[in-house]
Amino acid sequence: MTISDFSVQALQQAIQRGDISAREVAQQTLQGIEQQAALNAWTEITAERMLREADALDSRQRRGERLPSLAGIPYAVKNLFDVAGHTTLAGAALFQDRPAAEQDAWAVSRLSRAGALLSGMVNMDAYAYGFTTENTHFGATRNPHDLTRVAGGSSGGSAAAVAAGLAHFSLGTDTNGSIRVPASLCGIFGLKPTFGRLSRSGSHPFVASLDHIGPFARRVDDLALVYDVLQGQDKHDAFQANRPADPTLAGLAETGQRCALLGGFFSAWCDDDARHALAQAARALNIQDEVTLPEAELARSAAFILTASEGGNHYLPALRSAPERFEPASRERLLAGAMLPAAWYVQAQRFRRHFQQQVLPLFEQFDVLIAPATPCAAPLIGQDTIHINGTDLPSRASMGMLTQPISFLGLPVCSVPLMTAGGLPIGLQLIAAPFNEAAALRVAFALEQQGITCVDKQNGKQSN
Amino acid sequence: MTISDFSVQALQQAIQRGDISAREVAQQTLQGIEQQAALNAWTEITAERMLREADALDSRQRRGERLPSLAGIPYAVKNLFDVAGHTTLAGAALFQDRPAAEQDAWAVSRLSRAGALLSGMVNMDAYAYGFTTENTHFGATRNPHDLTRVAGGSSGGSAAAVAAGLAHFSLGTDTNGSIRVPASLCGIFGLKPTFGRLSRSGSHPFVASLDHIGPFARRVDDLALVYDVLQGQDKHDAFQANRPADPTLAGLAETGQRCALLGGFFSAWCDDDARHALAQAARALNIQDEVTLPEAELARSAAFILTASEGGNHYLPALRSAPERFEPASRERLLAGAMLPAAWYVQAQRFRRHFQQQVLPLFEQFDVLIAPATPCAAPLIGQDTIHINGTDLPSRASMGMLTQPISFLGLPVCSVPLMTAGGLPIGLQLIAAPFNEAAALRVAFALEQQGITCVDKQNGKQSN
Repeated sequence: MTISDFSVQALQQAIQRGDISAREVAQQTLQGIEQQAALNAWTEITAERMLREADALDSRQRRGERLPSLAGIPYAVKNLFDVAGHTTLAGAALFQDRPAAEQDAWAVSRLSRAGALLSGMVNMDAYAYGFTTENTHFGATRNPHDLTRVAGGSSGGSAAAVAAGLAHFSLGTDTNGSIRVPASLCGIFGLKPTFGRLSRSGSHPFVASLDHIGPFARRVDDLALVYDVLQGQDKHDAFQANRPADPTLAGLAETGQRCALLGGFFSAWCDDDARHALAQAARALNIQDEVTLPEAELARSAAFILTASEGGNHYLPALRSAPERFEPASRERLLAGAMLPAAWYVQAQRFRRHFQQQVLPLFEQFDVLIAPATPCAAPLIGQDTIHINGTDLPSRASMGMLTQPISFLGLPVCSVPLMTAGGLPIGLQLIAAPFNEAAALRVAFALEQQGITCVDKQNGKQSN
Repeated sequence: MTISDFSVQALQQAIQRGDISAREVAQQTLQGIEQQAALNAWTEITAERMLREADALDSRQRRGERLPSLAGIPYAVKNLFDVAGHTTLAGAALFQDRPAAEQDAWAVSRLSRAGALLSGMVNMDAYAYGFTTENTHFGATRNPHDLTRVAGGSSGGSAAAVAAGLAHFSLGTDTNGSIRVPASLCGIFGLKPTFGRLSRSGSHPFVASLDHIGPFARRVDDLALVYDVLQGQDKHDAFQANRPADPTLAGLAETGQRCALLGGFFSAWCDDDARHALAQAARALNIQDEVTLPEAELARSAAFILTASEGGNHYLPALRSAPERFEPASRERLLAGAMLPAAWYVQAQRFRRHFQQQVLPLFEQFDVLIAPATPCAAPLIGQDTIHINGTDLPSRASMGMLTQPISFLGLPVCSVPLMTAGGLPIGLQLIAAPFNEAAALRVAFALEQQGITCVDKQNGKQSN
């Protein structure tokens, strides 16, 4: 058994007992990252910080202190989160010369205080604009299930690191699907919380109207635990000796969530692998109902408009002064986005409120709506198109077509990995009402308990 | 003494005692409107409704009921508020064929429940886009102080009706200055509350990011009373027999507000009449301090961008299908607005937050900031330019140059009328921190008590 076989809680307890030291965990992690360098997941390894954090924990353990809930747990962050002393890249060569961050991003400092060990920063699509993590400057991150395939994006490094067993969890961001798409393709769990729930402070922005931060993990209880450390409401004070049982963790096994499948757009724009995964989940949960979001395709277009406009606005000064330093795969769409008519942008924001009003009443009847996370399993690296619904679609833009309408609504989603007949993972989105992350996590836990999710079988074995 | 010489409270009490009936008030009002038809303030007179409302109040009075706080008070609304059974015009010939409103706008229903008598709907710049109420279709509204001059806009009819003594108060809207500009030029008080404070429900929108509704009156206590009926927090239940003294009214005479003048942009872009009015107020209130808003000119540009973009978006379908039915003075700028680059719109919204953060700390030192409401007194009808700061500026767009940066901030403002040496009124803006309307109203009351405001002298006499 390697450290990656332990749950977060089990590993923390092993460290607390002294069965293994935090330094051993850090060293094994750093070794693993070297051994699996072919994944091209890390863009920077923070070995020094990781060992220092580990040693501090080991000292506390030796003094008999009660360690915090993530003590000694290795993790990685998408390279758009500020890490004190390091330059925040956001996947962009453009930023290589800028000064190092003075302090950790909000989320990183919260995880540090909870005892987690930062292994480093991981790869992404430049500017978080893309769904494949084929980064022209830093190279493509490879899928641990098949090194010839993409890891998904834009948080591809975050997903690959966890799927390969090299981190117990990681942080990513999701604007149009950038947590759910790589979680689907790499076969792990990912949580995109409700829009606005977690602070984005210290993370490099892309689209202020749509950006979310969130965690990846191989187990639902790990995902829930990390989410609870990140969210503010639980007063999960890791340094308090007699803290109460964590409410989200404690409630994971609660049943009785009312579920429905999302038909229409979501069942049309996916392949048989995705449909088969959906049918498996429906059988496991005994789901009878199907509902539709009537204007999902419009919602996707509106999300594209917000993305192009705000992304274009954000990068316009740099596009003017140094266009040659931009990711070629994104330069033209950023330029075009900056020039979209303002009337379109305003209409997209107005439609967002309209669409939210249309969709929210569904949650009076159902707690969780289920749809595929991606139209298909991982394409090959360099593959330009995917063939879906009788149509050739551009891979980079289309892997997020089923996630975009949902983040446009701001709803919380847990992405759950199943396995296709071809041996590649594919994810389902469990979509809940605003601020009801717990419902999505509970249904994810139920599916995991039934043994139809793919991670345990694959964990740590794909790339050996 | 005519009814217009009474304060709202005095007239309500006279009706309560039976000294005068609500029907007599309604009839005198309707007669006055006919006699002063040359003002061209009303676009529709709701005589039937007004008399019906009056008769219902008189019946209640005869039954010995206690009447609500606005019982029998005549008022008018800008023709962009829904009034049940009438077509909402928003100053636009374009809307003449659309169906009648099914119910009153939120503000109108609130005033009706408080017993106010609706005399009708009044003129405005088409779409609320303009500062002069020179409406190509409905004609220009004339200034009661000089019928050859504009009343200001876009709520020009609302201000002229009150200034002429034909209504005790009126409702207008303010996007970039459309309450404060006509209040200044017509010599009355106007209140633009904090952005978001009063519901705009049932009022025809122009720029969702900037639209406010608010009242006009000839006296500060009238303005405060009407505002208190409109705002939700006071639980001002007009039908409750023993309601407590109204908190805003009761607190009007409170002194000790810390005031400062706004220099820089606000003292540069006005003429000597405006500067003289400012000096008068400074003397009366013994103001020593002057502060500047460093980026006020940028704020004005940003407000223009939001206005053009959202206005352009709103009218784009009609601009496509029936451009010939548009107000010629606005058609081209609406078309151009719809085509502004989205990056500009996003930048303007980002700058708004930045500018708010710059300005809000000033309110730790001062309760009220004072600036002119308009660069000069009322221009002539048809006058294309005004000459300010050595520059010829287009009248229609420039009368709001000192109000735009303030509504962009969303701050509450009471506009207070003073008199120029030339015998025309000019207004000052009393600007307070968000949700501190009371501070602005108190300073307005102090100026009124000192006898330097112009309304009492002019009231009801200008157009005889």
